[in-house]
Amino acid sequence: MNRRAVFALASLVATAGLFAAFADDADSQAAAKAEVERGGVGARVFVVERETSSLAVYDFHQRELLPGRIGKLGNLRHATMVFTPDLRHGFLATRSGKISRIDLQTHEKTSEVYGSKNSIDNAISQDGRFLAVGEYDPGGLTVLDSRTLKIIHRLPGTFEAEGKQLLSRVTGVVDAPGNRFVCVLMEGAEIWIVKPSAEGVEIEAKIKTPHPKPYDAMITPDGRYYLVGHLGSEHVSMIDLRDLKAGVKSVSLRDPSQVYDEKTPVKLPHMASWAVAGQQVFVPLVGQSRLAVLEAGTFAFKRSIPLRGHPVYAVCSPTGAEVWVSFSGEKDDAFVQVIDTETCQVKRSLEVGKRIYHMDFTPRGSHVLITANQANQLVLVNANTYQIEDRQDLRSPSGVFGVWRAFKIGL
Amino acid sequence: MNRRAVFALASLVATAGLFAAFADDADSQAAAKAEVERGGVGARVFVVERETSSLAVYDFHQRELLPGRIGKLGNLRHATMVFTPDLRHGFLATRSGKISRIDLQTHEKTSEVYGSKNSIDNAISQDGRFLAVGEYDPGGLTVLDSRTLKIIHRLPGTFEAEGKQLLSRVTGVVDAPGNRFVCVLMEGAEIWIVKPSAEGVEIEAKIKTPHPKPYDAMITPDGRYYLVGHLGSEHVSMIDLRDLKAGVKSVSLRDPSQVYDEKTPVKLPHMASWAVAGQQVFVPLVGQSRLAVLEAGTFAFKRSIPLRGHPVYAVCSPTGAEVWVSFSGEKDDAFVQVIDTETCQVKRSLEVGKRIYHMDFTPRGSHVLITANQANQLVLVNANTYQIEDRQDLRSPSGVFGVWRAFKIGL
Repeated sequence: MNRRAVFALASLVATAGLFAAFADDADSQAAAKAEVERGGVGARVFVVERETSSLAVYDFHQRELLPGRIGKLGNLRHATMVFTPDLRHGFLATRSGKISRIDLQTHEKTSEVYGSKNSIDNAISQDGRFLAVGEYDPGGLTVLDSRTLKIIHRLPGTFEAEGKQLLSRVTGVVDAPGNRFVCVLMEGAEIWIVKPSAEGVEIEAKIKTPHPKPYDAMITPDGRYYLVGHLGSEHVSMIDLRDLKAGVKSVSLRDPSQVYDEKTPVKLPHMASWAVAGQQVFVPLVGQSRLAVLEAGTFAFKRSIPLRGHPVYAVCSPTGAEVWVSFSGEKDDAFVQVIDTETCQVKRSLEVGKRIYHMDFTPRGSHVLITANQANQLVLVNANTYQIEDRQDLRSPSGVFGVWRAFKIGL
Repeated sequence: MNRRAVFALASLVATAGLFAAFADDADSQAAAKAEVERGGVGARVFVVERETSSLAVYDFHQRELLPGRIGKLGNLRHATMVFTPDLRHGFLATRSGKISRIDLQTHEKTSEVYGSKNSIDNAISQDGRFLAVGEYDPGGLTVLDSRTLKIIHRLPGTFEAEGKQLLSRVTGVVDAPGNRFVCVLMEGAEIWIVKPSAEGVEIEAKIKTPHPKPYDAMITPDGRYYLVGHLGSEHVSMIDLRDLKAGVKSVSLRDPSQVYDEKTPVKLPHMASWAVAGQQVFVPLVGQSRLAVLEAGTFAFKRSIPLRGHPVYAVCSPTGAEVWVSFSGEKDDAFVQVIDTETCQVKRSLEVGKRIYHMDFTPRGSHVLITANQANQLVLVNANTYQIEDRQDLRSPSGVFGVWRAFKIGL
């Protein structure tokens, strides 16, 4: 019996004039015990069930799906979830522009607000006081107070082209050191560094990208480099947030030893799929059966690693010792390949479940949480033994959001 | 009103036959609201009050000291606290051999057990299932089940010297990847790698150190290197946990460009005082007004940084951009110097409070929690503006343990 149930019962007892349920102190002790055995908030994982617009809650320490679902959350394609530093609340941004606040104790939606008609990406400031959501329609950045979910400021994604003021879609929203947010204007082709405060937002810098059509961005786990991908280009734009004066740098993802057909359209990977492991960055190459290895800091091409199929996501273990890779395509999408970051070799192939969508390590790297969308399962893999230790049936599972994201930069 | 109070009230109401308090649903809503406003478990920080054998609890997000103290905890010199991955429980190991379990919701001691007559260091396994405590008397390693606090195995610190079986004190206990513990035998001069299971413990490796009298050890934040300090030696023993076959390496902390008086006794820093920042390791040099900078991985001496006094602790920011240093001695111990890890220069000096004992960054690096023991204060410093944003009066504060330690390797 949880606290909510106790309150409900208390009201019922009061109304009916029946208080026998509380006569036995053992009952309340049993309830308290049940609460203890339920496990704490630190091991809770919110899993997006895309087709039913719901979130399921899994406890990876107890290895059980907690009762109930959080529903009616809007369009959950590319939905992202962030958490307050005190682990009281989670915030889910959805494609339908709705931002929902979830109570991490009761697993209920306690508030919602519309940032726009169409949103993507959200972030929570380093101090946990501010939320930022990237908006497509109308284009801009919405900044909210994380305590009240009130909108503090709607920053229009204004840019100038051919003498006209236009509105750009905004994407790639991340938190950065210095209690800042960084985002990129898709039509504007500008990186914006924004500092929120209770009074509004200050635009600290607007930096033009050297290529057009940015479509996505990421920040390295140390909060230092912000990288932007461009549609139809093999180049990535990079800024060093510790040294903005150094300006924006253009980095090619092409292997200098290979010959490329310049007529073939270039497709770049989703930037969130990159894995930074110590002094190396691992990048899934779209439409190729290889993972590119770049040098951290310079992002210069070092080598590539042959894989069983076309990679989609690369995820680094907390130790930096391994990178786990998922794949696209019928033949490969049930598999994960594990790369040894020292030898840059595939050390293991695991069959997990059809159409793997998302992978996330538990905070100290003991396990990996994997959603197999077509298999309708959340799978818990032991990262030391590579054994599957738990499977939970879910409905069309997609994104996996452990509450420990609250403690990481740039998520 | 917290949950406990609700239960107590419920019993009282039942016993007295008075249920009016529950007649109004608004009351229970108010109680629920109070609980929400109290803040969640993620921002809780346990601060050792050494002289009174107690723990105070601070919420860094709400910026308030929570009511009450947890007392009667034993000798809290060098006490360390670890947390379960689900943030249900904390475990405090003390010099008097007592291990106390603290409920992170109610802040009450819910269990205690004696590991030995004299303990030091504790660690929790990567999967959160096992605790290990280093014992001085009798010497050994005690392994406990984190769910029940039952002792699973007392592993004697046995070693052989001159044909005799002797017992060694055990220190430097850390968790390591592969769900293992690593510790070092002080008299035995051996590093032990231990794998716990429900059935007992398996000693995976015993590695003789190349120098005698190990007194302390640490593991790098990526869980890869285990480093052991030796009394009266300028050398540190190092093993690579990913490659045990490579054996133990001896590393000198001496600056090759300096001339040393071989008759002067060598004093090495407490190993927990080292800061690993990206590709550099910062080491406070005992009795010198300098911080040594080593190369990560090889631990070769690179350079040193002049400081205002004798450094005690070096703590790295989560971004790796800064190292904060505390000092010993009347003249300097109220100050912190902030090192820029890129330029290896002091970029800032802050006066915080007399006799600084412990510093810890909040998880995403927005603030630093500092205990000023002689000033009897816990101080919250904004790590972006370097302003002091909160001061709380405490009694002889020492160690600072944020619950987010649950999510870090080797703490």
